[in-house]
Amino acid sequence: MIVVLGITGYIGRAFAQALRERGWPYIGLSRRHLDYTRFDVLTRYLDDHRPQFLINVAGYTGKPNVDACETAQADTLAGNTLLPMTVAQACTAVGIPYGHVSSGCIFAGARIGQDGQLTVERDLTRPDLRALADEHPESIHGFTELDTPNFTFRSPPCSFYSGSKALGEEAIAGLGHGYIWRLRIPFDEFDNPRNYLTKLLRYPRLYDNVNSISHRAEFAQACLELWGRRAPFGIYNVTNPGFVTTRQVADAIQRVLKPGHPFEFWASDEEFYRLGAKTPRSNCVMDCSKLLAAGVSIRPVEQALNESLERWQWQAQS
Amino acid sequence: MIVVLGITGYIGRAFAQALRERGWPYIGLSRRHLDYTRFDVLTRYLDDHRPQFLINVAGYTGKPNVDACETAQADTLAGNTLLPMTVAQACTAVGIPYGHVSSGCIFAGARIGQDGQLTVERDLTRPDLRALADEHPESIHGFTELDTPNFTFRSPPCSFYSGSKALGEEAIAGLGHGYIWRLRIPFDEFDNPRNYLTKLLRYPRLYDNVNSISHRAEFAQACLELWGRRAPFGIYNVTNPGFVTTRQVADAIQRVLKPGHPFEFWASDEEFYRLGAKTPRSNCVMDCSKLLAAGVSIRPVEQALNESLERWQWQAQS
Repeated sequence: MIVVLGITGYIGRAFAQALRERGWPYIGLSRRHLDYTRFDVLTRYLDDHRPQFLINVAGYTGKPNVDACETAQADTLAGNTLLPMTVAQACTAVGIPYGHVSSGCIFAGARIGQDGQLTVERDLTRPDLRALADEHPESIHGFTELDTPNFTFRSPPCSFYSGSKALGEEAIAGLGHGYIWRLRIPFDEFDNPRNYLTKLLRYPRLYDNVNSISHRAEFAQACLELWGRRAPFGIYNVTNPGFVTTRQVADAIQRVLKPGHPFEFWASDEEFYRLGAKTPRSNCVMDCSKLLAAGVSIRPVEQALNESLERWQWQAQS
Repeated sequence: MIVVLGITGYIGRAFAQALRERGWPYIGLSRRHLDYTRFDVLTRYLDDHRPQFLINVAGYTGKPNVDACETAQADTLAGNTLLPMTVAQACTAVGIPYGHVSSGCIFAGARIGQDGQLTVERDLTRPDLRALADEHPESIHGFTELDTPNFTFRSPPCSFYSGSKALGEEAIAGLGHGYIWRLRIPFDEFDNPRNYLTKLLRYPRLYDNVNSISHRAEFAQACLELWGRRAPFGIYNVTNPGFVTTRQVADAIQRVLKPGHPFEFWASDEEFYRLGAKTPRSNCVMDCSKLLAAGVSIRPVEQALNESLERWQWQAQS
């Protein structure tokens, strides 16, 4: 039996679906029934029920976006730093392997250049780098699991959300038998306020940037596949191979969904941060070759993105 | 045997001294020899050595002052929130009682008025409240262990240091068998950059405020006495009964130590926060009647303060 924390959330539901598809028995714990934020409560539960594996999808994301974490610092830390610690320490105390859903948003930018001669650029919105993303994508490389996160409390500026996620990873790194799975901007064909495509459709103005992104169902399946294959514990970037620019995604939405209005973009970073955002945003390219080398298959980002748009299901507006 | 974490620090050394005076065998763990920030390492150590009791004095205070924590957020959280969690969870996993040195700085202000009709005032620097502290000290009441901390991430503004200490308390509250001992502005007769009296002697300008304070050796002895008496686990404010204003302490220093220069004060809060400080300061009055009711004796603040000044030992200036 597999225990899942945070099963009712946007990513948690994808894990539930993936577990059902695999026929793996699971139970979703709700905080109302069991306060799993308490070490003693969780440890006793694990000791009594001895699950095979625990998946922690719970965390604190801001609503409607990451700016909300700046003013909810205690909840942000409790959800993204303290809870993973409690979970990892309880699993370690009882001897249960676990997987923790982390985030690629602890990085900013990409590694640019030719193999063996790469430099980290935190800011991909420079005109020359945007041109590079369009014209020479082969010269833009993602961050690997060996790179030190660079959008954290230790490498400011960062958002409070990113800082809390990075500190959560740091606090549990190497503890017991655990996976750290890094999600990055979830999307799929289901219209939802958490879906990247929905966000682009609804924002009055878009911020043109360069990002790796994760198809939601593929993310959950890839995480489970790592455990299914008994891949070595540790950190895995779980993104669809490649990256996209916001303009490329907007063009694809325009072409397939024909939303009926043209997309507008912020004129500059300066304008975006002055009018559209309170806290710095992580935009980054991730390298998922460790995931692929572990034998897990995940579609190239263009394919996953195009299929999501072709199968797009509008949600009724309230 | 008692294990002490953070024994080489300013407060840790007072615990070492107090343990020697009591003849209680102890061992101070150093991070260089045992990385006690790692749950697995600490748990294994506790399981192997089975100490009677563990004392956690380790933490991250800014150098030269709390402003430094604003730019060292990861270290501040790691020392003051994550470490106490790891310690409390490891002790709970192994079944060892513990004491954690927390801080009164998670409060601001005092409760003002007559018994049964008290209102919390966060800011004691208003002229009428300063006059009250001098003329009607009986109408100024400290915060008890039942009051919710009000200088925290949940009650902004606060300093990052205070936020991290409050979150540390919250994370371990009620976990296993533990004491949370709240220290508040340590002082004694030994000239030291961490000593409140040294700070007042060295600051070019003083910030006039109202505070409860803790005599360093008495603090350590009172904490040990709680454990010695097997007082109920939980939170204890460990301050000398009463409170002092900065002007009262400055006058006492002037009278006894005759430093040879008059003290200067910031003209206003506004001036202090504009020129003298980066982050809000906690100034507060604490109620230590729970400590006294547990049968622990600790001298009134005036007596402890006067004796410290009368026995003052200057440290050679480098």
